[in-house]
Amino acid sequence: MPRVVKLAVIPGDGIGPEVIAEAEKVLDAATAGLDIRFDKTHFSLGATRFLETGETLTDADLAAIAGHDAILLGAVGGVPGDPRLKDANIERGLLLKLRFELDHYVNLRPSKLYPGVPGPLAEPGDIDFVVVREGTEGPYVGNGGSIRRGTPHEVANETSVNTAYGIERVVRYAFALAEKRRKKLTLVHKTNVLVHAGGMWKRIVDAAASEYPDVAVDYLHVDAATIFLVTNPGRFDVIVTDNLFGDILTDLAGAVTGGIGLAASGNINPDGTFPSMFEPVHGSAPDIAGQQIADPTAAILSTALLLDHLGLPGEAHRVTTAVEADIAGRDGSARTTAEIGDAIATRLQA
Amino acid sequence: MPRVVKLAVIPGDGIGPEVIAEAEKVLDAATAGLDIRFDKTHFSLGATRFLETGETLTDADLAAIAGHDAILLGAVGGVPGDPRLKDANIERGLLLKLRFELDHYVNLRPSKLYPGVPGPLAEPGDIDFVVVREGTEGPYVGNGGSIRRGTPHEVANETSVNTAYGIERVVRYAFALAEKRRKKLTLVHKTNVLVHAGGMWKRIVDAAASEYPDVAVDYLHVDAATIFLVTNPGRFDVIVTDNLFGDILTDLAGAVTGGIGLAASGNINPDGTFPSMFEPVHGSAPDIAGQQIADPTAAILSTALLLDHLGLPGEAHRVTTAVEADIAGRDGSARTTAEIGDAIATRLQA
Ligand SMILES: CC(C)[C@H](C(=O)O)[C@@H](O)C(=O)O
Ligand SMILES: CC(C)[C@H](C(=O)O)[C@@H](O)C(=O)O
Repeated sequence: MPRVVKLAVIPGDGIGPEVIAEAEKVLDAATAGLDIRFDKTHFSLGATRFLETGETLTDADLAAIAGHDAILLGAVGGVPGDPRLKDANIERGLLLKLRFELDHYVNLRPSKLYPGVPGPLAEPGDIDFVVVREGTEGPYVGNGGSIRRGTPHEVANETSVNTAYGIERVVRYAFALAEKRRKKLTLVHKTNVLVHAGGMWKRIVDAAASEYPDVAVDYLHVDAATIFLVTNPGRFDVIVTDNLFGDILTDLAGAVTGGIGLAASGNINPDGTFPSMFEPVHGSAPDIAGQQIADPTAAILSTALLLDHLGLPGEAHRVTTAVEADIAGRDGSARTTAEIGDAIATRLQA
Repeated sequence: MPRVVKLAVIPGDGIGPEVIAEAEKVLDAATAGLDIRFDKTHFSLGATRFLETGETLTDADLAAIAGHDAILLGAVGGVPGDPRLKDANIERGLLLKLRFELDHYVNLRPSKLYPGVPGPLAEPGDIDFVVVREGTEGPYVGNGGSIRRGTPHEVANETSVNTAYGIERVVRYAFALAEKRRKKLTLVHKTNVLVHAGGMWKRIVDAAASEYPDVAVDYLHVDAATIFLVTNPGRFDVIVTDNLFGDILTDLAGAVTGGIGLAASGNINPDGTFPSMFEPVHGSAPDIAGQQIADPTAAILSTALLLDHLGLPGEAHRVTTAVEADIAGRDGSARTTAEIGDAIATRLQA
């Protein structure tokens, strides 16, 4: 009997369905010869669903998704400024809700400059690092509110909530990852201003460091980290940071490694209590949707993270190798979204 | 009788005194022929003072500084990791205290790529924008705390406090500045996650926009803004943003325009109730202090912002022109901090 992996697929909005179609194609090609079967359920979620039904993520949706082994997500979000979406918050109500409810405390975002990829830096050097972004607390908790809304006396607060429990588990994950890589961990925060949250992050990293004596640890304020990302990105191996700083650093990292069209991510629940979710870092880009011009590479690379998470590192490696080969052959001539997916799938069949 | 400007000078720590000496030199040269006299008081503040006396910023210091017309600050902060400074927080207790107590609600940070300056971007294009960073609220208010500190059950919160009053005044300043420039204003926030604070910023910008019909307004999430700063910095004219996002964006902006050795800033109280403070964006860099190798350009450019603030735009312009000419002549050969200051001062005397 083949191993059955129950995969929830959320193509989402905009270019999401197009890039996910290619990701599925590549996933199938990568696992073709194996004794494994993906039992896929497609979920219609996102701005499109909201506009049709008024629903963002129902309890039934969440329960159904939680019953799967893993999730593959394209991108969600409608056309910016669409008045019908004014009071929907697809990001908070769907994407962040999934990350929080499914306890995706490791938001894993590798950044690698592939040979041949043009980037914005004049002398990029070797770029190959991973950001381990905390995914379930910090400024993202949604713990805010306002009074006297819309008046000149309005006050709006946003509270970042940080726990030793939450930080410790993600910090340990980052140390373990650094041990398997170049053994360097950089904590990024803003300890001189956010003294309470930053102080706790720093203390927890310092305490854990003694258990990972092989890993060299350093610390950067977030502002300084952005400088190094453009002047010396090669200095980074594993970065561990909070939810908001991780959001900012990974978009910048995506840009310096040739664009977020290549940036993959995993929202991981390492305990396995809940299914982990794999998605490109980019958004739904409604302006280019449906034209077959979106680059599916980030979605495809997300399947490599998925395969790795499923305990199939060999297949994950084959996908990244096929992507690297495809990238190396890119000469700037236009290919459709499907042509890129086909080319990568074909390499895997070879 | 000459106009007397009471100037508080805070050289600070590390390279602060060296770069401030050159800034003073240039300030004197720029105003030499005018009927104006700078009545300077030097304040010994920073890590050095703390280590000697245990004091960071006393009420008497603050009152004395507040009695001046303007402030010129070098940089403050001791050697990172110095155990004697473990419980001092020079940044919060001195720098941020000055910004908050003196109601420096506009933290003005111009970013310009001067001809001839090598930067990290392969194709930087024309970079010339100004970040108007809110300086007196947001995540910087210090409104946080922790419980069960040092235990596995620690919880640390940080509350960002935002007011319509505080946002409106800085937003209007930014619009007025955009009107005098290329008439483009970009709000940067993270409205999809920080819905309360971000929502208020957005509403206030949208409402003010109708009063500045010449100014084109757009909005970017902070993560997307970092991407544009490295892929298309020329798209920005005036950026208005909160205290934390402004901190991050301006360090990155400094990097893309050739390093924070060139980035000047003004902490401005436009009402004139309190003295405004001018400082380079860079820190005290204790590792290179006392060697006359620090670049005083950022401190010198800060005096141009000071002159402008004092109602001397012609002299401000002469300083930036002299700096530009100096920069254009830089060929990479080493000059001491004082030699750079001398060269710029000499151009002003010519
Ligand atoms: C869409 C948004 C809520 C999300 C985030 O801020 O986490 C996105 O920017 C990301 O990085 O995945
Ligand atoms: C030293 C620090 C508190 C300060 C800040 O975060 O504002 C600095 O980074 C700056 O940008 O002036």
